[in-house]
Amino acid sequence: MTVSSEGKRPILKRVCVIGLGLMGGSLALALRRSGVVEHIVGCGREALLRRAKEMGAIDSGLVDAAESVAECDFVFLCTPVETSIGLLARIAPMLRPSALVSDVGSTKNALATAAREIFGASAGERVLPGHPLAGSEVSGLEHASADLYTDCIWVLTPLDGEAGDELIASHRTLRAALEAIGARVIFSTPEEHDRTLAYTSHLPQMLSTALALTLEEAFGGGSPALEIHAGGLKSMLRLAGSDPVMWEQVAASNRANIAEALERLEGELRKLRESLGSVEFRKKFEQAKEFAKFVKQ
Amino acid sequence: MTVSSEGKRPILKRVCVIGLGLMGGSLALALRRSGVVEHIVGCGREALLRRAKEMGAIDSGLVDAAESVAECDFVFLCTPVETSIGLLARIAPMLRPSALVSDVGSTKNALATAAREIFGASAGERVLPGHPLAGSEVSGLEHASADLYTDCIWVLTPLDGEAGDELIASHRTLRAALEAIGARVIFSTPEEHDRTLAYTSHLPQMLSTALALTLEEAFGGGSPALEIHAGGLKSMLRLAGSDPVMWEQVAASNRANIAEALERLEGELRKLRESLGSVEFRKKFEQAKEFAKFVKQ
Repeated sequence: MTVSSEGKRPILKRVCVIGLGLMGGSLALALRRSGVVEHIVGCGREALLRRAKEMGAIDSGLVDAAESVAECDFVFLCTPVETSIGLLARIAPMLRPSALVSDVGSTKNALATAAREIFGASAGERVLPGHPLAGSEVSGLEHASADLYTDCIWVLTPLDGEAGDELIASHRTLRAALEAIGARVIFSTPEEHDRTLAYTSHLPQMLSTALALTLEEAFGGGSPALEIHAGGLKSMLRLAGSDPVMWEQVAASNRANIAEALERLEGELRKLRESLGSVEFRKKFEQAKEFAKFVKQ
Repeated sequence: MTVSSEGKRPILKRVCVIGLGLMGGSLALALRRSGVVEHIVGCGREALLRRAKEMGAIDSGLVDAAESVAECDFVFLCTPVETSIGLLARIAPMLRPSALVSDVGSTKNALATAAREIFGASAGERVLPGHPLAGSEVSGLEHASADLYTDCIWVLTPLDGEAGDELIASHRTLRAALEAIGARVIFSTPEEHDRTLAYTSHLPQMLSTALALTLEEAFGGGSPALEIHAGGLKSMLRLAGSDPVMWEQVAASNRANIAEALERLEGELRKLRESLGSVEFRKKFEQAKEFAKFVKQ
């Protein structure tokens, strides 16, 4: 592979994108637009491959994942996290020894563990798990956009914990390609990533879903009562529209961290409920208001 | 008072707005712009009165609430709900017999009860509680805008349960003035309003505040971990920036309904936590996704 990013020359020769939904479709479109890839192989169902070709997202396509990775320098697994783990085992025997596998899954620990089981001591070289923080409550190739990753934080979690100047050549090339499509690459470990995301991403999702379930139980869908709300309800229910299959897999692959975050939050809700309208209640609100300033709107 | 709304003639002669924060300031600005009021008296601290006059929101101002309502046809209480209840008792002796008092508080039952205690059998004529669903996580006169109530739902909750054609003249005039500033007026009862809002407004607020408290406990403010999130966190934390004093009073005046809503939600969170990543979990997510479609984004 060519590692130079000088001029306009492609830095990735042949890339495989497995899974052509919102994430994979957008990645293919963004790589294409940036001009850093010579050839993109897509992998997915026939109808998706056809559509992705029409959109100009891929150059060629194959239904079989193991076949699709042959001759590729970079492989992106763009399926829900447990699906990606299964795929990693299936494509492993067909990968070129120099090929690098990455992914876009919402959790990183489970994939890292699987990579170590499959590749042993060379896992850190062969697999570099990643997570672009660009999810959305919509899904599917029809919503894919070359802009999805513009200015988005893309976390890379090297298995051996290296970062910055320590990166091996293929890892540096991956980072350069991601930066070429507009992402802001940062480094973490799989463990730290999953614990943080349990609080900053998975917990908000659980809240939004639980709010929807509570409102449905109280009023049922389509009740006129649901018209009586300020803007707050909409913003709190937006995430509830997210893909159930993706979230089933996120939850399964980060169970302990999410359970801990949920227990803490249930405790905070109980304290608010037991102090409704008291001075202690107001102090909690003041504390929360101060904290909220740290997450810029 | 003049009840005709034909042509451009004002339909309200002299209006008093007590409380010149976001809600009261915006109401004064919107009434002024719509041309339906001849004279607006403001009531608030000296500095606020000065500022409101500079902004063109009020024509005259008084610090004392009881003095400010003399000679007025309409009085709007635009303070947090428990403050408004105290003010209602204080201004009652000074009100003209034909004057109508309304408010913009987040709960309606407590004010309705106070009105019945103060005015007895004529409470339904003298007080028409209202609630514009136009709250915001910002507060204060500096954020006031003549546009705050444009297209916003404004719930009126007549104490005697009348609505539509049954309204007495002063109630019809109030409705016409609110429609003149762009609000969409709907009718409810104080009891129904408070129960509904516990779920559609107060519950989302509690969730956002509890999420902020949980994240602070886990990371502390300003932690780099807080940079690692997708857009979902921001939308879920927006409400946590709301005014603590206002919410202390909302919670105190709607305790039973909010406690019920919170208990149900805590139950849903517990069920999600106990089924993380299972088929049952996915079914919950599918149910929530279906429901979320009913609240248009």
